[in-house]
Amino acid sequence: MTDALPAECLDQLFRTARTHNELGGEVDDDTLRRLYDLLKWGPTSANQCPARFVFVKSQAAKDKLGPALDEGNYAKTMAAPVTVIVAYDLDFHEKLPVLFPHADARSWFAGDLEKRKVQAFRNGSLQGAYLLLAARALGLDTGPMSGFDNAKVDEAFFKGTRIKSNFLVNLGRGDKSKLFPRSPRLSFDEVARIE
Amino acid sequence: MTDALPAECLDQLFRTARTHNELGGEVDDDTLRRLYDLLKWGPTSANQCPARFVFVKSQAAKDKLGPALDEGNYAKTMAAPVTVIVAYDLDFHEKLPVLFPHADARSWFAGDLEKRKVQAFRNGSLQGAYLLLAARALGLDTGPMSGFDNAKVDEAFFKGTRIKSNFLVNLGRGDKSKLFPRSPRLSFDEVARIE
Repeated sequence: MTDALPAECLDQLFRTARTHNELGGEVDDDTLRRLYDLLKWGPTSANQCPARFVFVKSQAAKDKLGPALDEGNYAKTMAAPVTVIVAYDLDFHEKLPVLFPHADARSWFAGDLEKRKVQAFRNGSLQGAYLLLAARALGLDTGPMSGFDNAKVDEAFFKGTRIKSNFLVNLGRGDKSKLFPRSPRLSFDEVARIE
Repeated sequence: MTDALPAECLDQLFRTARTHNELGGEVDDDTLRRLYDLLKWGPTSANQCPARFVFVKSQAAKDKLGPALDEGNYAKTMAAPVTVIVAYDLDFHEKLPVLFPHADARSWFAGDLEKRKVQAFRNGSLQGAYLLLAARALGLDTGPMSGFDNAKVDEAFFKGTRIKSNFLVNLGRGDKSKLFPRSPRLSFDEVARIE
């Protein structure tokens, strides 16, 4: 039987972790690889692993991303050490012979783009959440956003593929003194029931 | 500056955690409330918090769920201490006056069901992932599944609402000796790039 993690770990992952607008510091490439080497273990249906990631760090990459951002997300994203484009590949099934070798899982999805759209969006979003919590587990602060033009990002970063952007995540070190008060959450009884 | 969590915490969350088919033990209602009180803090766009949860525990609830399950998911789900129906509410915007009090966020979504479908599916899936990792953080084992008839689950559990089922999660205590070898993951360079 496994114990619960210590209280300070639950705080770092969930209870005191916050979404940050202003992120500074440096995030080196080794940290990005460690981040992926954690999040990759999170479960997806039939081990689809549809998520794809671009880590935007250089000025050239920021210049490609900038025009796609909503005005309110522009300055903070240009200033962040890294912005992750969390995306998903609608052709994820092509890798299932490697990822799910026990059965011909590729055939479950080949020729059914509508099914793949639902599966890739669901499981790619799960993997985006694994990235957020893996980043917090590594001591990074995060700033996820969906205020941007997906079609522009896809054109700039994924042209000629079936990879589609999902959401963005700024990564770095936040400053708790600059945070606004936390927004409320719904109570258990407002969103859940035990039957 | 925040440190990375200790290695054994990273193991419990990601590196040695596994999806379990056979789950036993007991999961009391207090644990389900603690689970929600962790996962609720995970970020969603504009604090939408669209996820809704039904914790299926009783025989009567299992009897409602059973006919919707794919054959391969039936026996393990009937035997699990709890099955969570992870769902999302397409009318999540009605709660934004409480959840996002700084602006009239309700008006961003009212009258645009197609936009709400994308937002609720993305952010509700993120919250499903937060549930999976919060369960592991509490020492529970998980068995997520998407092999079921969503329309049947919606009819049985969410009739008369705009709440839609997303995926299912069995919860309990697993037995590592019964696991198959772990399926592979894609390498960093196959799914990611640093620009």
